[in-house]
Amino acid sequence: MLWSGWGDPAKAADLPEPLRKLLVDLLGLRPPETPAASFGEVRLPPVALSPLVLTELRGVVGADHVRFDDDTRIRHTRGKSTPDLIRMRAGDGSDAPDAVALPGSHEEVLEVLRLCAAHRVAVVPFGGGTSVVGGLVATRAGFAGVVALDLSRLNRLRSVDEESMIADLEPGMRAPQAERLLAGRGLTLGHFPQSYEYATLGGYAAARSSGQASAGYGRFDDMVAGLTVATPSGTLELGRAPKSAAGPDLRQLVLGSEGAFGVITSLRLRVRRAPAEKVYEGWRFASFAAGRTALRVLAQRGPLPTVLRLSDETETMAGLARPGELGGLDTDAGCLAIVGYEGDDAAARRESAASALAELGGVYLGAQPGESWAHGRYAAPYLRDSLLAAGATAETLETAGFWSNLPRLYDEVRRALHAELGSPLVMCHISHVYETGASLYFTVVTAQSGDPLGQWERAKRAAGEAIIGAGGTISHHHGVGRDHRDAYAEEIGELGVAVLRAVKDRLDPSGVLNPGVLIPSATASFR
Amino acid sequence: MLWSGWGDPAKAADLPEPLRKLLVDLLGLRPPETPAASFGEVRLPPVALSPLVLTELRGVVGADHVRFDDDTRIRHTRGKSTPDLIRMRAGDGSDAPDAVALPGSHEEVLEVLRLCAAHRVAVVPFGGGTSVVGGLVATRAGFAGVVALDLSRLNRLRSVDEESMIADLEPGMRAPQAERLLAGRGLTLGHFPQSYEYATLGGYAAARSSGQASAGYGRFDDMVAGLTVATPSGTLELGRAPKSAAGPDLRQLVLGSEGAFGVITSLRLRVRRAPAEKVYEGWRFASFAAGRTALRVLAQRGPLPTVLRLSDETETMAGLARPGELGGLDTDAGCLAIVGYEGDDAAARRESAASALAELGGVYLGAQPGESWAHGRYAAPYLRDSLLAAGATAETLETAGFWSNLPRLYDEVRRALHAELGSPLVMCHISHVYETGASLYFTVVTAQSGDPLGQWERAKRAAGEAIIGAGGTISHHHGVGRDHRDAYAEEIGELGVAVLRAVKDRLDPSGVLNPGVLIPSATASFR
Repeated sequence: MLWSGWGDPAKAADLPEPLRKLLVDLLGLRPPETPAASFGEVRLPPVALSPLVLTELRGVVGADHVRFDDDTRIRHTRGKSTPDLIRMRAGDGSDAPDAVALPGSHEEVLEVLRLCAAHRVAVVPFGGGTSVVGGLVATRAGFAGVVALDLSRLNRLRSVDEESMIADLEPGMRAPQAERLLAGRGLTLGHFPQSYEYATLGGYAAARSSGQASAGYGRFDDMVAGLTVATPSGTLELGRAPKSAAGPDLRQLVLGSEGAFGVITSLRLRVRRAPAEKVYEGWRFASFAAGRTALRVLAQRGPLPTVLRLSDETETMAGLARPGELGGLDTDAGCLAIVGYEGDDAAARRESAASALAELGGVYLGAQPGESWAHGRYAAPYLRDSLLAAGATAETLETAGFWSNLPRLYDEVRRALHAELGSPLVMCHISHVYETGASLYFTVVTAQSGDPLGQWERAKRAAGEAIIGAGGTISHHHGVGRDHRDAYAEEIGELGVAVLRAVKDRLDPSGVLNPGVLIPSATASFR
Repeated sequence: MLWSGWGDPAKAADLPEPLRKLLVDLLGLRPPETPAASFGEVRLPPVALSPLVLTELRGVVGADHVRFDDDTRIRHTRGKSTPDLIRMRAGDGSDAPDAVALPGSHEEVLEVLRLCAAHRVAVVPFGGGTSVVGGLVATRAGFAGVVALDLSRLNRLRSVDEESMIADLEPGMRAPQAERLLAGRGLTLGHFPQSYEYATLGGYAAARSSGQASAGYGRFDDMVAGLTVATPSGTLELGRAPKSAAGPDLRQLVLGSEGAFGVITSLRLRVRRAPAEKVYEGWRFASFAAGRTALRVLAQRGPLPTVLRLSDETETMAGLARPGELGGLDTDAGCLAIVGYEGDDAAARRESAASALAELGGVYLGAQPGESWAHGRYAAPYLRDSLLAAGATAETLETAGFWSNLPRLYDEVRRALHAELGSPLVMCHISHVYETGASLYFTVVTAQSGDPLGQWERAKRAAGEAIIGAGGTISHHHGVGRDHRDAYAEEIGELGVAVLRAVKDRLDPSGVLNPGVLIPSATASFR
């Protein structure tokens, strides 16, 4: 993974010239004055951990698995939000962990947590490092240092129960590796978020990920049958049945806890038969509102396609649903929907969904837009790097709400971004649908000011306030991290925060687990 | 509701003579020596609440809505488990609340909770009174009395959002009333548990109910879009979107909390279009194992019927799936499955499911068994009263597990019941299926010993230990209450219990909410 950007450096793509020209015309883009820092120019703080702690860490995980060389520290610094990249491009490594520990078992994780609790060392669980909400930056104040707990050695497929269709997997396994191993048995998780190429299974669970095929395969939290969780207070072993009436569902308390309650050390995940057939197609609707109605009807009456995504007019015009063709401006009016079907019954569902979509005003565009979307589905983060280099801040934010509230959410977020950023390019799509509502996913592109971090921070705060004010959730699938923490506190209220804090105090009494993430500190005041 | 049994006394049904004869032959049934107590013979403890508390309660909810006459107290005593009925038939009213308060608003609930916390009065939230796991009996020790908080005045349909397909309802509304009001708009919840005729919506949520049509409509927890919860520490307002990545799902912490964390005062529930078509049919499988495989394949590959239920050989032979025909012994070999389809696409799903069932060895029996099941679906609890009167203890217990573990669960529970009860009649069915597993629902009939309560307590404990030992959950839809509390503690482990206790301590610092239910007291020791 590129230390200062996204993905495989060999796959870096220049901005298509027509798009660059469009953005110059539209947004007044100008290349940044200072070039991006090189790897060697990144400024790291000195290692703050005491020799005693380092020695004890080595005693638990082995000398080879405690690292504090510059390379390792830089590669475990922050996540992959646009502000994260802007800071790294400026050579700012101030949030680097002091050391990286790589445990090899559940017991080693437990020991590391106990050790860090005893020494008041903050612990940041680290999977794929793809957080876009500041989920990998621990508060340093009050701690004797920060250790990144890299789970990449916990990367086994432990077993598969093909009768129950459950795979037992370790949290550090990357998603593509999981899919490869499962494909060997004709199985799939069916979970393909934008971060797919780098994300880990533990990260999916800790951050309540949702993938591009969520209409067909469900969200990641739907797939979790069981979890083993290491905490400073011991082990939680959760999930004996698909569903239970035995009390609150404690799995749902760990899912989305972002390393603040414990470290997931194994996952029992529902798997499905890998689909023999996959069809992706395009449909056009006259307006975002018309398309939204069509998606709602499919979600409420079925049959639900596997992939269902609707771009608004701006996103359609910019061609963002098909990153491979960006800049080849789509000049037809209306909104593009990508509709995909996977599985044995793909043909039957397609026939039935297609007739519903046509009835609801959709115009069938054939397979080409769908194939183009599928081809470019993981390309957008690469594009962001080129945009940054060209002087644009490109970032995404998202929310979800009930259907009747989506128009208000859409309007309020756009209004807030425009008010803060002047004339940004704001694109939106619906990409996850449910019977009662859906998510809205915004992509914002704006010309960088002289203070791009401050510029985006203000815009992001305004968008978050708009989301909360309009009754949406602060995140449908990115999570909370540090960046959404205050908005999240407003979303669940003081008593909700107090409940989470009570849980954290019980599982992590010294507060060393990912401090500053998810839950505001007890002394923070609410707006 | 009959105070000492189930349902409408006018619907009481005598035991069919062939069944009575069979049970006499099979189990050595003999009518009990002492007749059941009359209403006037029930012994109630004196009202323990101080005049000050009663005055303050009247100040909050109004004088008409604080009651402590014998009739009201008896009708709020315990729930509807067989031991509950045996105690009432013996005239034992020792668990009666001191008073019943009927709040008329969320604010009144909040005030009652604060008042009771201040005076250390235990509060038992009371909906339909249908708990079968001791969910309505508060610990008295350490408290200045017990108030049943009857939610029947909170019974409005507040609004319906037909675009989002969400109805905003109050917790005290009984399920049939909710269905009647929704039917007026062509809508349904689709939630039909055995307790349907008396259960309330708040009770469904607090106990994580699952209905007979769960394959088609989901469990009740799947239907909950939002909740308002009154606690002694304030109000929780949960649910801004169908799904969210903003932290742990706090709705899932309230669902299944059985009044130990707070009182649900409003529910935003997903609704569906009421089905125009309903078809229920019978299928026969050669064995429980063959039928289980068929259900599993339907659950994993689809299409899933709306109702899917498979009786084992014993239950099939006894005809329990068709209470209206009980005693008309089903002498064909094998296992009966009831398969139902509801909705616009019922015909298409039926065609597809029927061909899958036939391929998997099912023999189609036509509509008669399905219609018979549908006709008698709420009759079983009435039958229990007749069995009690005839000298039999009849009770149900249930669990759920992953598919590969179901045979072990089935065997271990039966073994435990047989070891404890001699030669009881143990019947079982699978009535809720998921991709990764299913529930097992056992009905046990045994001749009463001279100490029927002790006899069942031992059998129930043995069955619970078998369930936990075999890796199942202690309840798929009955809940925890007092009866499953210790097994539940084993299921989630000491740390899981500690997490729940931390949540309770934060929301209910004086511990007045349903004390003794769900969570063992802090000083209880684990086995």
